[in-house]
Amino acid sequence: MIFRQFFDATSSTYTYLLASRPGGEALLIDPVKERLADYTTLIEQLELRLVHAIDTHTHADHVTALGDLRDATQCTTIMGERSRAECVSRRVGDGEILCVDGIELCALYTPGHTDESFSFVLGPVAPRAVFTGDALLIRGTGRTDFQGGDPARSWDSIANKLFRLPDDTTLYPGHDYKGWTASSIGEEKRFNPRLAGKTESEYIALMNNLNLPTPKMMDIAVPANLACGQPAAAARPQG
Amino acid sequence: MIFRQFFDATSSTYTYLLASRPGGEALLIDPVKERLADYTTLIEQLELRLVHAIDTHTHADHVTALGDLRDATQCTTIMGERSRAECVSRRVGDGEILCVDGIELCALYTPGHTDESFSFVLGPVAPRAVFTGDALLIRGTGRTDFQGGDPARSWDSIANKLFRLPDDTTLYPGHDYKGWTASSIGEEKRFNPRLAGKTESEYIALMNNLNLPTPKMMDIAVPANLACGQPAAAARPQG
Repeated sequence: MIFRQFFDATSSTYTYLLASRPGGEALLIDPVKERLADYTTLIEQLELRLVHAIDTHTHADHVTALGDLRDATQCTTIMGERSRAECVSRRVGDGEILCVDGIELCALYTPGHTDESFSFVLGPVAPRAVFTGDALLIRGTGRTDFQGGDPARSWDSIANKLFRLPDDTTLYPGHDYKGWTASSIGEEKRFNPRLAGKTESEYIALMNNLNLPTPKMMDIAVPANLACGQPAAAARPQG
Repeated sequence: MIFRQFFDATSSTYTYLLASRPGGEALLIDPVKERLADYTTLIEQLELRLVHAIDTHTHADHVTALGDLRDATQCTTIMGERSRAECVSRRVGDGEILCVDGIELCALYTPGHTDESFSFVLGPVAPRAVFTGDALLIRGTGRTDFQGGDPARSWDSIANKLFRLPDDTTLYPGHDYKGWTASSIGEEKRFNPRLAGKTESEYIALMNNLNLPTPKMMDIAVPANLACGQPAAAARPQG
């Protein structure tokens, strides 16, 4: 399998490229608009055909490359079924499986950071991994104070969905801010400081008192991402 | 196998942690002094025993954590046999194999970036990978204008050693400056702009005309690294 993790230093975002073989079909998870050339260059060099570009949720800290990738490669643009981005061409439901050239990704509805966040579980044949977006981070969790965020739903998604994956499932998050690139479900159960040894009510109190500033990019990123990263194109008269 | 890649954003350095299993022995490649707590925290959480801390070469852009890791864990500190760092406790020669709990790393003398640079090849049972330090980067190569650097030796190390590894060998470099985390030997053969389709003399001319500024950290990092990252300790009277 071809697996690549890209890091966008501006927003500390991880993007993932998966393909089963050189010359085969590929998918991207959480691509960043400003890094479009990186993805298209590597896809061309490996002679891949991008079939799916997926956003785990409507990002507030960077603009998605979904629309630009669709224009460049004719790929399907995918989000979860609760997404408000009318531009996406496929909406997946909880438990739905995306197949790409032998790679299976199972969509898992994991709201809490936003009300429309999905994770994607790789398996069952490949080394098991989960791409969590901002639902679960390495030793952290995504904030729950905007876009329908809800700490109780975040707790439920983590405790009752993500933490029911096998402990040795590799965790690939949507961000990391201190240079860690992966973890595992077992590690986060034991060592995530917001979760390990905490009750649901303690977690909710903690998340409700983070007092984080609004993301710098939010007023630009959210409307842009609801147009798949192409707000100008969306605003143009159709016809 | 446990495999973790860490990124130090200040120097764009990648550090690698390898272990065969939770609770077993581990090794680190190119650890950064300022990130010591990250390594020791994860090692403790995974109940690993660090047995080797390895520097691929004497870094000029960041200070190594080798000495601090030795003090914290009693690990062996390892560099190639041409290293001028008197503090290291083991010097490996070309072709020498380091074994850690079933993981085999073969030392490969790959001078050119410096005259004492080694790469380390993971295999033969595990998914094959090579940790190249600055000998070969993703779509680039380490500069050759200080510390005994030599573009002809860099060409020889890449063309006649690293490029003789199987094409599907994963390349884990010592740095990346644009957010790419891995490549493969086959990819670099075909797409490294300094190497693909180039002759040795073209490569040498290119490397001799990079006109790069001296690394900001060089006057601090090189003497510090010759003391395993503990210049003050080295300066203290012994006995």
